[in-house]
Amino acid sequence: MSIAVIYGGTRENGNTEILTEQAVQGLSVEKIYLRNYDIHSIEDLRHTQGGFYEVDDDYNSIIDRIIPHDILVFATPIYWFGMSGTLKNFIDRWSQTMRDASYPDFKNSMAAKKAYVITVGGDNPYLKGLPLIQQFQYIFDFIGTSFEDYIIGEANRPGDIFQDKKALFSANQLLRK
Amino acid sequence: MSIAVIYGGTRENGNTEILTEQAVQGLSVEKIYLRNYDIHSIEDLRHTQGGFYEVDDDYNSIIDRIIPHDILVFATPIYWFGMSGTLKNFIDRWSQTMRDASYPDFKNSMAAKKAYVITVGGDNPYLKGLPLIQQFQYIFDFIGTSFEDYIIGEANRPGDIFQDKKALFSANQLLRK
Amino acid sequence: MSIAVIYGGTRENGNTEILTEQAVQGLSVEKIYLRNYDIHSIEDLRHTQGGFYEVDDDYNSIIDRIIPHDILVFATPIYWFGMSGTLKNFIDRWSQTMRDASYPDFKNSMAAKKAYVITVGGDNPYLKGLPLIQQFQYIFDFIGTSFEDYIIGEANRPGDIFQDKKALFSANQLLRK
Amino acid sequence: MSIAVIYGGTRENGNTEILTEQAVQGLSVEKIYLRNYDIHSIEDLRHTQGGFYEVDDDYNSIIDRIIPHDILVFATPIYWFGMSGTLKNFIDRWSQTMRDASYPDFKNSMAAKKAYVITVGGDNPYLKGLPLIQQFQYIFDFIGTSFEDYIIGEANRPGDIFQDKKALFSANQLLRK
Repeated sequence: MSIAVIYGGTRENGNTEILTEQAVQGLSVEKIYLRNYDIHSIEDLRHTQGGFYEVDDDYNSIIDRIIPHDILVFATPIYWFGMSGTLKNFIDRWSQTMRDASYPDFKNSMAAKKAYVITVGGDNPYLKGLPLIQQFQYIFDFIGTSFEDYIIGEANRPGDIFQDKKALFSANQLLRK
Repeated sequence: MSIAVIYGGTRENGNTEILTEQAVQGLSVEKIYLRNYDIHSIEDLRHTQGGFYEVDDDYNSIIDRIIPHDILVFATPIYWFGMSGTLKNFIDRWSQTMRDASYPDFKNSMAAKKAYVITVGGDNPYLKGLPLIQQFQYIFDFIGTSFEDYIIGEANRPGDIFQDKKALFSANQLLRK
Repeated sequence: MSIAVIYGGTRENGNTEILTEQAVQGLSVEKIYLRNYDIHSIEDLRHTQGGFYEVDDDYNSIIDRIIPHDILVFATPIYWFGMSGTLKNFIDRWSQTMRDASYPDFKNSMAAKKAYVITVGGDNPYLKGLPLIQQFQYIFDFIGTSFEDYIIGEANRPGDIFQDKKALFSANQLLRK
Repeated sequence: MSIAVIYGGTRENGNTEILTEQAVQGLSVEKIYLRNYDIHSIEDLRHTQGGFYEVDDDYNSIIDRIIPHDILVFATPIYWFGMSGTLKNFIDRWSQTMRDASYPDFKNSMAAKKAYVITVGGDNPYLKGLPLIQQFQYIFDFIGTSFEDYIIGEANRPGDIFQDKKALFSANQLLRK
């Protein structure tokens, strides 16, 4: 059981990261902080003659790192009631990888994985974070990944997450069931 | 009544653009194609001493263009069951503008506007696009903008949207009620 | 192509009925007004020795009437942001029919049908009716029925629905695609 | 702080009741099992001359019992991805009470209360129960009640809920924050 965590937050040691640390502590985990990489927005060329062309950024190197893992943890703060634009850009690019001859098994590989979502918001996230969870459900259904579980935490200022006992408990359970 | 359209799509003349054209034809509209601009992801520095610093990209110039308008139309294809990462990055940055001394009236200005959403997807968007609509609802509630109406269209290949009679009819009605 | 309409409203000639009439006019339709029948709440005896027992009400007679049809139209006003309790009681009882030796093919029969939902609400139904649509999606997924399309209309006082041009247009299209 | 629990389940000692017991143990609670009462569906007479008339059932007696309390806990199994028809019929009738001269302060009374929801389902409730939570959000927003928190539990056969450690932990916290 091999785990990669994909961090969508743009602040170091943010509440989402703290909560995710609770979930993965003691486990061997590959951590990918998307904020440290250059990932372009997708350019939708699905219907253009010639299709997609190679993009000169860090995206493929991250795909290469997640493919070997069995479990993916998507950890993102709730920005404007959704995942961060940083994480969204990463996921948008999957449309390209699904058509990339260099990754013929991308969808099959993703379909063999299990996914978890950890997300933290400051404005009533237990209600206003639900569309994000539903979006992830459709994302994972589409790519075939099994959506195992999710945690929503409530926090605003740095460290607030330590007050969310329910989220902390859930984090401790998440990968140990 | 002055209208700006904020396009989140990354393909020229895509189905979302065609549908939006139906909605705004004959009206004087300022069109902003986000794909033509450099807009960085937000770096969340809300809780950092010193706070946000100035970002050298095109974001502020677009804020300057939308502020004078009464109506904003957000037009985005559904990518992975949400708005495009391009549009999400633009909206994420509002968190910075809300704290930017150069834009002391940003929230009040947004709260005086009316918003419409036009979105098109290829995979059962009338169901799988609903979390996106709910996310926009929370976004507009937060910033204070009145969420007037939305259209979901179904299309995949270029031009498919012309087959979605319901979406076309709704587009023709949207801004004329 | 044979159609049954299941009406969940409790008011005669309500807006939901008017809108539904637009959808089915000129078509041969079996209309079932649940308010005219005695349908008990389910008593959950799935895990009780002996299981369910026969209930003396009109429920089975309605099941007998819908089973022969290819298309089911569920027409319900939005009461408290959901379907009417009247309609919910009817659907709850499906749990019993699925275990009823008198209806060994109930689920298969339902799985061969197509379903449409027509719903009308007075309090911002285009947003606040979305959880109801999502609930129907899960209902139909579970029983295997294909969820073809839905219409949300906005109306409060009797006849208001005639002002909702978008809903009327959609109703005229609904079963004619 | 005075608490009433409104049970919508139709099975004695069901998983929802067990989970709710965890939440209220040691607290003084008025428990109302809707299944033990006769509550008619609403007949929508809002727009009829004369309006609503008195209904001869147990509904008002239950309203009388909940009004004195500060906190309402709505405890319902997930039936067909929503609350039970039994509970829905109870809530639908609020439309009548809001117009009932015998209850001139009903809405104000409800608006002064805090609400919790406890719900248990067997088919992936952490995802498929979300529309129900969103529906409750709109219900409480409308009547003015503060929606404090909710728990979703996963269970199917009697007693299964004891395996849902996350739900049990949340139940123990729910009213003690």
